[in-house]
Amino acid sequence: MSSEELAVLAANSSFYRAFAAHDVNAMDAQWARRVPVAVVHPGWAPLFGRENVMSSWRGILERGETSIRFERASAHIIGDAAYVVCLEVVSGAALVATNLFVREDNVWKIAHHQATPMSPPQREAPRPKGPLN
Amino acid sequence: MSSEELAVLAANSSFYRAFAAHDVNAMDAQWARRVPVAVVHPGWAPLFGRENVMSSWRGILERGETSIRFERASAHIIGDAAYVVCLEVVSGAALVATNLFVREDNVWKIAHHQATPMSPPQREAPRPKGPLN
Repeated sequence: MSSEELAVLAANSSFYRAFAAHDVNAMDAQWARRVPVAVVHPGWAPLFGRENVMSSWRGILERGETSIRFERASAHIIGDAAYVVCLEVVSGAALVATNLFVREDNVWKIAHHQATPMSPPQREAPRPKGPLN
Repeated sequence: MSSEELAVLAANSSFYRAFAAHDVNAMDAQWARRVPVAVVHPGWAPLFGRENVMSSWRGILERGETSIRFERASAHIIGDAAYVVCLEVVSGAALVATNLFVREDNVWKIAHHQATPMSPPQREAPRPKGPLN
């Protein structure tokens, strides 16, 4: 694994650490400031812009109800951006998340997060002709 | 809107045109060849690598059952990558999709696609304290 990929995975870990700790300030520090940011929480309409994105995190984190951990993260560098795909276990439910990162002042920051619930039977072996899209 | 954003939206349209036409070759042509690609179909485990990603599209497109259209696409440039968030209407169901693009030979190609089902009540007004994550 390249040092860039390791740095992206470290940023991904920081994101989930802030999430698991319900730490609004730490979460804020993970998000990019110079590129357009967005978030797609499962079931929600997409949210755009730093103010809306952070407001959604404040709502989620301040409730303090969520337990979250991630597994099987893989980092993929595409030019000066990178994406991580990982599994999330959120209060016992399995999701797949994509986290998109950009480098700001040589530090990887998250620009976009999207999570999709995963159907339990698909987790170990995706069926070749699964749900559409 | 910048010319870059317009070019990314055009690439996003080409992706959905190939999808709607169930055109495997056109879909193949949309996907990047020089960066790691991935796809998260709703409910599936994530798929990595061009062979796995295209195999999933062949399975979906060759069945020819899916009607798909997209709405409200917005493009966001982050360095030499870009992401589009849009709504998908897939066989009547609403989803939110993120499509990640990179430039190859000055043409925007898709590197990652993830779609998340949207709960109908959230579509017009996301609730401030919605589902977790």
